[in-house]
Parts: sequence; C-alpha cells; structure tokens
Amino acid sequence: MAQQRRVHLCTQRPTSTVCVLGTELSLDVLGSAPKDAVAFHVQGTPGVKVYVVHETQSVKLPSSVCRWPLAASTEVLLTMEALSKDVGDEKVGAGRPGGSGPSLDDSELADVSLDADTSRSGSVGRTMMDKATWTWGPDGHGAILLVNCDRDDPKSRVMDNRDTAVRSYEDLKDMSQMVLRTRGPRTIFTGHRLVLHVDFGDADKVGVFYGGSECRHQGGGPRHQEESIFFVEGLSFPDASFSGLVSFHVTLLESPEKGLLEIPIFTDTVVFRVAPWIMTPNTLAPLEVFVCSVEDNEDFVAAVSAMAEEAKCPVTICPLPENRNDRWIQDEVEFGYVQAPHKTFPVVFDSPRDLGLKDFPVKSILGPDFGYVARDVLKDASSLDSFGNLEVSPPVTVGGKEYPLGRILIGSSFPRFGGRRMARAVRDFLFAQRVQAPVELYSDWLHVGHVDEFLSFIPAPDRKGFRLLLASPSACYQLFKEKQEQGFGEAAMFQGLQAVPKPTINEILANEVLRKFNSYVQNCISWNRDILKRELGLAEQDIIDIPQLFQGNEQARANAFFPDMVNMLVLGRHLGIPKPFGPLVAGQCCLEERVRALLEPLGLSCTFINDYFSYHVLFGDVHCGTNVRRKPFAFKWWRMVL
Amino acid sequence: MAQQRRVHLCTQRPTSTVCVLGTELSLDVLGSAPKDAVAFHVQGTPGVKVYVVHETQSVKLPSSVCRWPLAASTEVLLTMEALSKDVGDEKVGAGRPGGSGPSLDDSELADVSLDADTSRSGSVGRTMMDKATWTWGPDGHGAILLVNCDRDDPKSRVMDNRDTAVRSYEDLKDMSQMVLRTRGPRTIFTGHRLVLHVDFGDADKVGVFYGGSECRHQGGGPRHQEESIFFVEGLSFPDASFSGLVSFHVTLLESPEKGLLEIPIFTDTVVFRVAPWIMTPNTLAPLEVFVCSVEDNEDFVAAVSAMAEEAKCPVTICPLPENRNDRWIQDEVEFGYVQAPHKTFPVVFDSPRDLGLKDFPVKSILGPDFGYVARDVLKDASSLDSFGNLEVSPPVTVGGKEYPLGRILIGSSFPRFGGRRMARAVRDFLFAQRVQAPVELYSDWLHVGHVDEFLSFIPAPDRKGFRLLLASPSACYQLFKEKQEQGFGEAAMFQGLQAVPKPTINEILANEVLRKFNSYVQNCISWNRDILKRELGLAEQDIIDIPQLFQGNEQARANAFFPDMVNMLVLGRHLGIPKPFGPLVAGQCCLEERVRALLEPLGLSCTFINDYFSYHVLFGDVHCGTNVRRKPFAFKWWRMVL
Repeated sequence: MAQQRRVHLCTQRPTSTVCVLGTELSLDVLGSAPKDAVAFHVQGTPGVKVYVVHETQSVKLPSSVCRWPLAASTEVLLTMEALSKDVGDEKVGAGRPGGSGPSLDDSELADVSLDADTSRSGSVGRTMMDKATWTWGPDGHGAILLVNCDRDDPKSRVMDNRDTAVRSYEDLKDMSQMVLRTRGPRTIFTGHRLVLHVDFGDADKVGVFYGGSECRHQGGGPRHQEESIFFVEGLSFPDASFSGLVSFHVTLLESPEKGLLEIPIFTDTVVFRVAPWIMTPNTLAPLEVFVCSVEDNEDFVAAVSAMAEEAKCPVTICPLPENRNDRWIQDEVEFGYVQAPHKTFPVVFDSPRDLGLKDFPVKSILGPDFGYVARDVLKDASSLDSFGNLEVSPPVTVGGKEYPLGRILIGSSFPRFGGRRMARAVRDFLFAQRVQAPVELYSDWLHVGHVDEFLSFIPAPDRKGFRLLLASPSACYQLFKEKQEQGFGEAAMFQGLQAVPKPTINEILANEVLRKFNSYVQNCISWNRDILKRELGLAEQDIIDIPQLFQGNEQARANAFFPDMVNMLVLGRHLGIPKPFGPLVAGQCCLEERVRALLEPLGLSCTFINDYFSYHVLFGDVHCGTNVRRKPFAFKWWRMVL
Repeated sequence: MAQQRRVHLCTQRPTSTVCVLGTELSLDVLGSAPKDAVAFHVQGTPGVKVYVVHETQSVKLPSSVCRWPLAASTEVLLTMEALSKDVGDEKVGAGRPGGSGPSLDDSELADVSLDADTSRSGSVGRTMMDKATWTWGPDGHGAILLVNCDRDDPKSRVMDNRDTAVRSYEDLKDMSQMVLRTRGPRTIFTGHRLVLHVDFGDADKVGVFYGGSECRHQGGGPRHQEESIFFVEGLSFPDASFSGLVSFHVTLLESPEKGLLEIPIFTDTVVFRVAPWIMTPNTLAPLEVFVCSVEDNEDFVAAVSAMAEEAKCPVTICPLPENRNDRWIQDEVEFGYVQAPHKTFPVVFDSPRDLGLKDFPVKSILGPDFGYVARDVLKDASSLDSFGNLEVSPPVTVGGKEYPLGRILIGSSFPRFGGRRMARAVRDFLFAQRVQAPVELYSDWLHVGHVDEFLSFIPAPDRKGFRLLLASPSACYQLFKEKQEQGFGEAAMFQGLQAVPKPTINEILANEVLRKFNSYVQNCISWNRDILKRELGLAEQDIIDIPQLFQGNEQARANAFFPDMVNMLVLGRHLGIPKPFGPLVAGQCCLEERVRALLEPLGLSCTFINDYFSYHVLFGDVHCGTNVRRKPFAFKWWRMVL
C-alpha cells in the first residue's frame, strides 16, 4: 500500500500542498461538503490522476463522469506522476455538481527519496524494492554497514569510528553511502524542511557524515534537483541487546504558521544491517602467520618461519618489547573480518586475556584497513577466555541446514559449581553475530581448558573438504600395544631431551594410574565427539583419531603427556605439528609415523616442530604459540539462509 | 538424528555402560581391533539391537551374518528398547570371526527424560516432539512459563518470584511443572548422578522448586522408577536483552575413578518461553473500573459508578489516603495479563510516572493472582511516560499479516532536538513482548502529550468489530459552520459553567488565531491518521471523526478547547464521554447531538459526564481519570504466527 496522506480541503479558500512521488493524497471531500450535499463532482488538471474509492473499489476517475454520490464511504485519492515544473501548476477542484466548491489549487509533486545499496551491488541505485525491510538469503535485499573499526590514519590513536571527523578518503571508503534525492519546484524545498533521523536508541550505533551534494538547476528555472550524499559508519557490532539493524528516515516537514511546530507530511526509510564479525577456519588460505619472539624460542620461530615460507605465507614476528615475554599469540587474539558489498577488511578480536601481549593488538595490528574489536568483561578473565578456546569449523550442513561459514566452537564448563567458562560478554558477542552459530563444547576437564588442546580441522580433497582431528588416548594405547606386541616394548619416549624421564612403552602400558586417567580423558573427548558429530553433521569417516596421551595435574585436570599433536598450525596443505618425541621404533618415532600414515594420504605435508622446552612444558604447543590471518570466505554472509 | 554416544571398548576387560532410551551407542570396533584384523564378528543378546553401518548405509545385524569386513568406515551402532531388569543383563561381544574379542558386557538401558507441557494442553505428558525448540502458531509446540509476579500471600511484602520459598499451593499453581522421569536398574541411579541445569546467563530468569517425587519399585526388585516434579517460575519478562526463551537440561553423569571429574553421558533438554505481558483493548469486556476519589470529584465518581452499574461492571474507588489527591489513574497504570495453558492472571504495569498514586499499584493492586511489573527509568519520567500515552488497538489484519491481539500504540515525539518521548526502558519492554507489535504515533504536539487525547477505539457490530475515533477540528468547524448557516450563530458554549467565558459559534468561527491553530492540529492528527491506517490496515470507513477543538498554550502545544470527547471511558456498549458544553441549539448541545448521531447507530449508549472543573481544567478528561481491567482475549498468544 502506497504511503497515503489525508488532506483537508477548506471551503473558504484553496488549499495548497505537496504530493511526494509514489504516495497518494486522500482528499477529505466528505468533511468539506455541506451537510445536505448528496453528490459531488471532482476534476483535476492533466498532471493529476484522480481516483474515486467507491464501495472499497478504487476507480480511476473518467473525465466523462462529473457526478458522484457522496456517501460515508466515498474517498477521493490523488496521485501525480510527472514532477511539477512550478508551484501550483496542478489543480483539483471539487464541489456540488455544476457548482463550485473547495479546491486543491496548488498541488506540487516533489520527489524525496532516501536510498542505499539495498541490492548489495556495491553502489547505490534508485530502487523500488522494500527499503524498510532487510532479508537474508540469495534473493535477500537490504543495505549493509561496516563497523568502521580500523585506523586509517596511522597518527590517530583510536579507531576511525571513535572520532567525529573524516580523516581521509580511505576512511570514507569504509563507510556505506546513503543518498538523499530531492527533486521538484524549488519553492517546495525552501518552504519545507527535510530532517534525517534514526530511531530512538540507535544513535550510539551509527555515525553519519555529510559528503556534500550535487545540485542541478535546469535552465536557470525554478526546478530543483539535488543528490545529497551521506556516509554511514557502524559504531557497534551486533550484540545481546543490538540486533544489528538500524533504520534511517528522512522526513519532509511542513512549516505552519510562525510559532507552531512543523508537521511531518512524508517519511522515507532505509534500513541497514551492521555486518557481523566472521571467523576463518583452517581450511581457508593463510595470508599472514604471527609468532612471538621470546627469550628462549629462537629455534621455534625459525621452524615456523621455514614452514610458512614453504607455504608461501608471510610471517609477522612480534618482538620481545611488544610481547613482554608472552608467547601465547593464539590466546591473545582471533583474526576475522567484516564484509559489505563495497568493502572487506580484517578485524582482530582482542581477547579479555590481558598478559604480556595486552597492548600488541591495538598498537601493532589495528591500522589502515585492519579493524579491532574487544569486549569488556566484568570480572577477571579465566583461562577459558583465551582464544585458543575459540575456534571455527569449516562450512558444514547439518540435517539440511547449511552453515556456509562454518560454526564457532567454544569450550565451556560442564555445568557445576565452580566450573570455568568464557565470559558472558564474549559469548553474547559471538552468538549475536549469528552467521556462525556457536557450539559449546566441554573443555573445563583440561588444565588450560582450550578446545584447541583436543581438536583441529585440516583440509582434505574429498568428502566435506576437511577432516576433524581429535586427540585420542585409546588410539595411542592401541598403537603402543601393537608396538609392544611387535617386540618394541623397551622403546622409550623423549629421546634426546635432557633431564626428561624416558618411559618405555612397557612402562606406559603398565602404568595403571595413567591408563585410568586416559580412559577418563577419552570419555571427555568422546562426549565432545558426540556433540561435534551432531552439531556439525559429521560421520565417523570425517573424523581422524590422533594418538595422544594426557596426564592429570593435582586437581585431576588434564595436560598433554607429550607434545599435543592436534595443537597444530595449518597453512594450506602444510601442517606444523608438535614433535611428540614418541618411542623410537627402528629409528623412527612411531607416533610421527602413525600421524604421517593418517594424514599424508590426504595430500598433506607434515612438519614436526620441536616445541618441547619452549612451549610444551609451559602447557601449550604449536597452535597456542602461533596465529594466522586467513583469506575471507568467497561466500558472502548476507546470502546465508538464517 | 538420535543422540549418539561413542563407547570405547577395551581389549583387556569387558566394558560396562548405560544406554539411555532413544539414544544410540556407537562402538569403537575399529579402535579396539588388532592392527592386522580385516574382519570382525559382533553379536548381542536379544534385548540389544545391533546395526552395522557399512558404506554409510545402516544395516540391522542379521544373526546369520557373523563376519563383517573391517574398514575405516565401519561403525557398529547399538540401541535398546526394553528397560533393563538388572545391571548387566544385556551383552554385546565383538572380535575376530570365530575368536573372542572386546565386549560390552554390562549394557543397561535407562530412561531419563525431562518433560514439560510442550503440547500446551495444560498438563505435562511424555512427548516425542522436539522439546528443545519452541515454535509459534496454531501448530506450534513448546512449554510456557509465567512470570510469578503476583503476591499470593497477603502478608508478604514482595512478589512471589522475589522470594525463594513456596508459600502456598496458590503460589505453586502459578508455576509450570517440569517432570524428570528416570527408569531402569536401581544401580544405575545410585552409580550415576543427574544434574538439572540452565544455560549460563539464564540463572536470573527462572526459579525452580522441587515438588517431591514419586518412586515405584516393582515387586521389591531392583527396578527403579521415579518421577520428580519441579515447579518453574519466571523471574523476568522478555526485554531488550532477553528473548524470553529458557532451556532446562538434565544431564546424566558417569562417576569415574575417585578424584576425577564426572563425565556427561546423556543430556535431555526442554525449552520454555516466558509468557509476554498482554494489553487489553476497549473492545474486550470490562471486569473492573478504577476511579480515584479526590477532594472535589464526588459527582464524577458518582457518574462513573452509575455508568459502571449500567454496564454491570464493579467499581473500585481508590480513596484519598491512597491516591494523595492524584486523580490520574489512567496515567499511573496499565492493566494487562499473562497467560499459560495452565493459568491466566492479570498483571498491572506500573508507569514510571510517580506522583500521588505512586504506591497504589504495589499496595492495593498487587495481590493473590494479580501480578505487577514496572520498569526502572534512568532519568526523570516525562509526561509521555504516563500510560494515557499507552493504548492498544483491537485485533487487526494488515496486508495479510494478522495481529489477533491488536497492536500497542504509543505517542512519541517527532524526531527533533528536545522532543519528549517515552523512556527507553518502557519502550524496550513493550517491543520485547512481541505479540502486540507497537506502533509509534506523534503526540508531542499536545501539551500533555498522550495518544488518548486524540484517539479511542469503540466496539461496533460490523466491519472489523470496532471503529477508531479521532478528534477532528475540521469536523467541528464544519458542524459550527452548518449551525451558523442554519441561523444559530449566536448560540454560546459553556452554558451553566460559572466564571467560564461563553464564546458564540460566530465568535469561534471568526477567531482566526483559533482557526489557524486548529488547522495545524488537524494536520498533526492527520499524520497520525495516515500512520494508523497504514499500520492497522484501516479504511476510511473504519474511522469516525469526532468534532473537537484545541487551543495552544504558550509553547503552542495543544490542549482541548472544550472537554475532549474522544477521551472517553468504554465499558462494552456504554460510553462515558466528557460533556462538551457545546452551543445549545434548540435546547440541545449540538456537539452531543452530533456525537450521538455518529455513535448510537452502532448500538452504543452515550453518557455525557461533566468533568469540566474536576478534570478538564486540569488538562485531562474522563479517560485520564479512569482505568479498566478487562477480560483477556479468547485467542491464546502462542497460537499467533509471528
């Protein structure tokens, strides 16, 4: 239904008003008719289309009919299609048949329209589609805003959306255009006012900059034609109390007599959705590897760099002054991105964990076209707030429901008193992004408590395009048993590591405390396996069990017994796996051999990296000590069916 | 897909585990097979159904086949259908064909189920429908919770959900039942633990009370069968950051070795939605009329009481000590209700306006089966926060979309600096209830600024079942013009009112300042008329223009020039209309006569109540000075299609 406006005619003098393109005027013929009138005539000049609504049927007024019965249900509607050349160039008269009556003498057609890139093409066109709604999916429509959370001016100390100035053309390019088009007789736009406004409560969600306007006056005449361009930036990501939708309105105000308030006569609305923050799974191509250079990890940094070079991926080394001897770059940040049809840029999510690397994200990652987001947490962050506990699966389909951007995985506590879990502010943020619906796993059984201690995803050429790797104590026991049966029971672990006890296969298999603890760990991981199969729609064949043992600390929480092989760095088909220092069988580490046998057939290249003293003894491994910025998905998030 | 649980078999000794009814166990035959095994056999006792998943096809194990190829894709699934009589009464063995191998020796079937009234029948049945989702509509499913915001114990000072005790059977009846059913061998339930838990962050949304349990032991045997009944109450209404959905889970925990954490092996989930607060339009039958007795309104109270008696509706008079000379009972509260299949009760929404009536809602309305809700506002409430500015339409259909409970109407400011509007906390609350999607109107042009100053709804026997009444200056000018033309120009207003100037029709029509102001008011109301037509799907024939004049105050804000006739009390077909004191024509008030002519044909009875000195001169009229609790809708809110 077209926007309709009621116009009261005055019997004593002609009424003048503005008709906005695409709207209808409803004339109050009944209200302005004398009490005893039973019929009326109505006639308009050629630029005006007049309809009479009679018995709820809308009939275009034929010029031949000049007498209509005047009933309580009679309505006269008026539309105009050609823009007025001048004020008062179209008229409608009404009255008793044959007599004179109230008239609409000055009806001027103006065009007022607020437009944005509702078709998601990357530029703003004039659209007839429903601008006031926003829909998901391949046939969806609705404009998109980015949170302007990068820092295009390196001299600035804050994100671009924390200031109230446009500092550069680069800054503008992160914003979405919104175009206000006005056309019509010049006097309308001097005699009326236009107000651009957002809904109450959305003022802290968006920033708007005026980008200037282009005026055209045809032949010096009284026609006005103007396109005013506004640039819009998001100030906030979707969150628990913000859906991400923001409506902009432009309202045409009529100025009544002096001293009275202006009256709205037309509103146009366009709605934007703030783009969500999107995580990138291991299956996406790596663009940049991050590693910290600390006091004792020269070899590790060299090994990671060599592997990255093979994978043709640049390495960024965070130096000691910036990391203050904090090597856990995986835990400090998570790399993701934001995307709109006109612009895409990476955004680093800074975890509530604030140790040595605390200032690194803002000081060294935030920059031109590299955004930043963080969440304040109310109380001290727990270990489960580190982003080694925040992963994302590759794209999956679960019982017909598609997750083309995968699903976020976070580790949580099994509900019980005193369990650790991720801070609510972080969880709320992750859930509010919507496009990678999070799955909660159980990781609190681990000492450090991160999901990357028992799972990883690797690319695969077949099936769903990936495999889920799960740490598996039973696979390890099975392997060791096999080796024992083959006569290698005296093969010992941790060869070449100084001052580390070197248990043999026989000793490990005979250690009942260790076996019981690993049986318990296996059950914990199996519970997660069941959840992962259900929530990611995986079959057993999508999962590979990686032999791994754990040991309990004094609170019976689990730590990897030898370097945790699933805690790996994935750069395309290159895997950087913690060197497990397993029992040597015929000069070969039987753990490495088994992992190669499992992964190389998938076309993957395994590099075993020694992180024993530099990371493993500090309760982390290769994945914990690295981080990767990856290429965004080819799939556009707004095409998702939610 | 059934909930599936991975079970690792041990080659050294038989494994024992619990299978929960309706779930599958996935046996790790591959992981427990020797390295060189190429085939396996698997066999179970009659109570166990064994399936082999081969090439992703699930095949029920025929007892004749005793040799299966062992491939990476082989899975063995196990389900049980009959509850175990005793521990270890079902067994599954696997191994090399002809040989022995790992076995599942003690597989016991237990039944663990958390149920609620998901079918919305009013009682809890065992259901196979998806308990973990909640859907709207006539075919929807999902359980419902009430915010237990009444005060069943008159001696208590707080609402029932503000304490942590069940004070009476009445208190329990407001809660929803949730039943935990457990069946199976007794030893399972002594050797395992069950935990009932809610999602993180929902703890402040619900209260749970244990209502005791019923145990049955069959023939003194080892079978356990128990139904534990919990009573659940809502603590919070849906709001900006609370969707209203709360999930309850029951998790079965396996106790591993001493000192280790328990491991979850099964979770059942049931989701509740907290019932929204629902407003009642004028078209619903009145149950109780409220009016304040203040120092100077004896006649008004008598007139309202007489009308209520005619309408067979009881009157509650709020006495002076409770109202502290505050007569604006419409502004202090809004009556609504909450509904679940098992219970419905009224809930008063206390407005942020805190004048003389401040304590009345908690002290005198809150009580047994009469709930209370309020919202804290951050700064001082404005006049637009009074609930004369909060109305609701009768049920409407708008372009195919049904609003079977009508739509909430609130008055707001037209966006501009310094405009008044309803507090965000109240608006957020109203929007979050969802079932009566609010429409914002423009009321800030009025001095008091309430929507009930220019609109009302009355029941009608035809069309949509109601008419929208709008105050209409142009209808008033048209009427006065007509009377002038009929020779009654010297008829004067306000006859019989002492010390009130008595303008004649001629004087009013000649007053250009008044005419211009009313032309402006007419435009303001017309803007609202356009919104109402669009948002409520109304045609012109659904609207009746009630003659009314307004005058400007020093800020050019509008006040009714004579008692505001749309500001009426609607009790079924009885209308209590402010007596307008219009010009007397042939001894008859021509305004009353016109209003009767408009409304009596709809079967309505008009009573004109003199509120001139007691309310009108204080900027309010009959509606502002009264309030009505009404019968809930016959339509159940959960049957709505959202």
